[in-house]
Amino acid sequence: MLCWAAAPLGLETHVLDPDANAPAAGLASHFVQGDFNDAETVFRFGRGMGVVTIEIEHVSIAALHRLRAEGVLVHPSPDALATIQDKGLQKDFYKKNGLPSAPHHIYKDAEALREAVRRGEQALPFVQKARRLGYDGRGVAVVRQHSDLATKLLDVPCLVEELVEIEKELAVIVARNAQGQVAAYPLVEMHFGEATNLLEILVCPADLPPQVAEAAYQLAKQTIEAFGLCGLLAVEMFWAKDGRLLINEVAPRTHNSGHHTIEACATSQFEQQLRAVLGWPLGGAALRAPAAMVNLLGEPGHEGAVRYEGLEGCLAIKDAHLHLYGKAMTKPFRKMGHITLLADTREAALEKAAQAKCLLRVVSG
Amino acid sequence: MLCWAAAPLGLETHVLDPDANAPAAGLASHFVQGDFNDAETVFRFGRGMGVVTIEIEHVSIAALHRLRAEGVLVHPSPDALATIQDKGLQKDFYKKNGLPSAPHHIYKDAEALREAVRRGEQALPFVQKARRLGYDGRGVAVVRQHSDLATKLLDVPCLVEELVEIEKELAVIVARNAQGQVAAYPLVEMHFGEATNLLEILVCPADLPPQVAEAAYQLAKQTIEAFGLCGLLAVEMFWAKDGRLLINEVAPRTHNSGHHTIEACATSQFEQQLRAVLGWPLGGAALRAPAAMVNLLGEPGHEGAVRYEGLEGCLAIKDAHLHLYGKAMTKPFRKMGHITLLADTREAALEKAAQAKCLLRVVSG
Repeated sequence: MLCWAAAPLGLETHVLDPDANAPAAGLASHFVQGDFNDAETVFRFGRGMGVVTIEIEHVSIAALHRLRAEGVLVHPSPDALATIQDKGLQKDFYKKNGLPSAPHHIYKDAEALREAVRRGEQALPFVQKARRLGYDGRGVAVVRQHSDLATKLLDVPCLVEELVEIEKELAVIVARNAQGQVAAYPLVEMHFGEATNLLEILVCPADLPPQVAEAAYQLAKQTIEAFGLCGLLAVEMFWAKDGRLLINEVAPRTHNSGHHTIEACATSQFEQQLRAVLGWPLGGAALRAPAAMVNLLGEPGHEGAVRYEGLEGCLAIKDAHLHLYGKAMTKPFRKMGHITLLADTREAALEKAAQAKCLLRVVSG
Repeated sequence: MLCWAAAPLGLETHVLDPDANAPAAGLASHFVQGDFNDAETVFRFGRGMGVVTIEIEHVSIAALHRLRAEGVLVHPSPDALATIQDKGLQKDFYKKNGLPSAPHHIYKDAEALREAVRRGEQALPFVQKARRLGYDGRGVAVVRQHSDLATKLLDVPCLVEELVEIEKELAVIVARNAQGQVAAYPLVEMHFGEATNLLEILVCPADLPPQVAEAAYQLAKQTIEAFGLCGLLAVEMFWAKDGRLLINEVAPRTHNSGHHTIEACATSQFEQQLRAVLGWPLGGAALRAPAAMVNLLGEPGHEGAVRYEGLEGCLAIKDAHLHLYGKAMTKPFRKMGHITLLADTREAALEKAAQAKCLLRVVSG
């Protein structure tokens, strides 16, 4: 979607991805197949580029540092990215910078965590998160009772935080450019699947007391300033039942919580990311119309060549905007696309989203 | 731009264009370099496609007929396209179908036209139009006085029509699908360059008395029904100073008068064309915000590798949307891109358009 946004801006795009059939391959000006965790591959790819940016955090930091040293603009900065890649460092960063987040402890593995519970130093219930490579609900364990300690724990370096009683899950995407200009997209409210912990439906604007919304915008802006980033930062937050507003985690890139901005906002998050990393003036982030977004996930029990059922029914919904990612193969819960629904009210947008979700099935064969 | 709109819909696109560096080459799933006036080339290209459509009228009709005979869906229909390709037949069509258009006469060449003037059968002033291959203001001569007869006439098969005193030039893009569903985009008002006869600035909605607007929508709908088209029809009209509403000409494809629909309307003309030719439900055509569009034309006196001056200034205008077509070379008055400006009122949109036009220059070197 970044390449898609880059085309009308007259930008030449080079994409590195391990999958030769990556959706971007067909839209980038140039495509290189390669491992973005391999320092040499990333360095060779990035040399001679005007600006290097990312769409996933798990990229060789060493290579990004080398590219910076050679004079290539790298956004987000390798230092910020290193902090964000490691959820332990990320949590430490919030604490150090006075940014509210659920209190946490760091453990080296499952046994160290169990030991802390045995000693009474770690109370239940809690959420355990792998420090690295967590993504789309993976790398997270919710431990409610002692019996979960035997079956649910991830045996990796991890952090543990309070299991927050959540009123709503929110996100604010903020953009910042090299001139220090900052723009925040309207708050969104996210609904995750119980089983998958994947974003299923998002609605914008969020339904919140004005002072909570204002606090969320301020928090998002403080966070991007603290990291000193150029580009986007998606700040996911919990609004707790006890009234606290807490950062859950951040992503320094275009994000699933901003897909609706393509139609719903003055500038899409994809164009905004390009403007921000290029040092161009930021575009407007104002909401044009209330919107809901549904992720199109591969149906459980279906694996293989993808087929979309109910597509025409969805397209008949007024102001429904379909985005398929061009992935040839589906598997259970794989993100295959999304639909954005605009309406006059958030309730009407949500109603249409429920309708679209009901009509469209991502199956195989 | 059609390929760009096709990507998120999960469509596979094949493009035929004589220029290996055509902008579409980078965005189409498959690109074939070839002459679309060569029947064999077009036929071979189109065999086995699901649907064949066009972005320019001057395509081999014989090939399109053969493809239809082989069961390929071809939209617009080859018969309608043949009528529209020839402005003489197009004018006859309006007359036969009771669609208002300036009265016309057909001549086989410049001498036949001069002879008619000499005999007093053809009054001055008039507009002469080449029957074939007119495009972007080419193939049109305005004859105001007898001395123009020696210097201005085009020596080709032509039609001659009354020089209408124009109050405003308007366009309505209508879409129709195989199920007969019809959707009309909001009326636009077009401002052409004096010297070039090229569209320079467009504003939407048009500023018109409601009954004139209503008549224009009705006329556009009647016209697409009369042609029986699937796909888009851009209906360019004159609102004459004497109050008549006259069809100037039509284009059965995505059109310069609809570029603003990408941001300003619920569904872009490009997605609408795809929906219409595929037999999908049409998208909404409602206006989201008043808009103006400026064509980015190559600066006179500049020919060669293109460079855009003032791009960042333009991008700093609130709700300015840049579209560069990715053409490597500029020449005087070549269409290199466009900018769409959204605002709360048409006057504010026009003001921004004037500002953008002033800031941005398409130069060489």
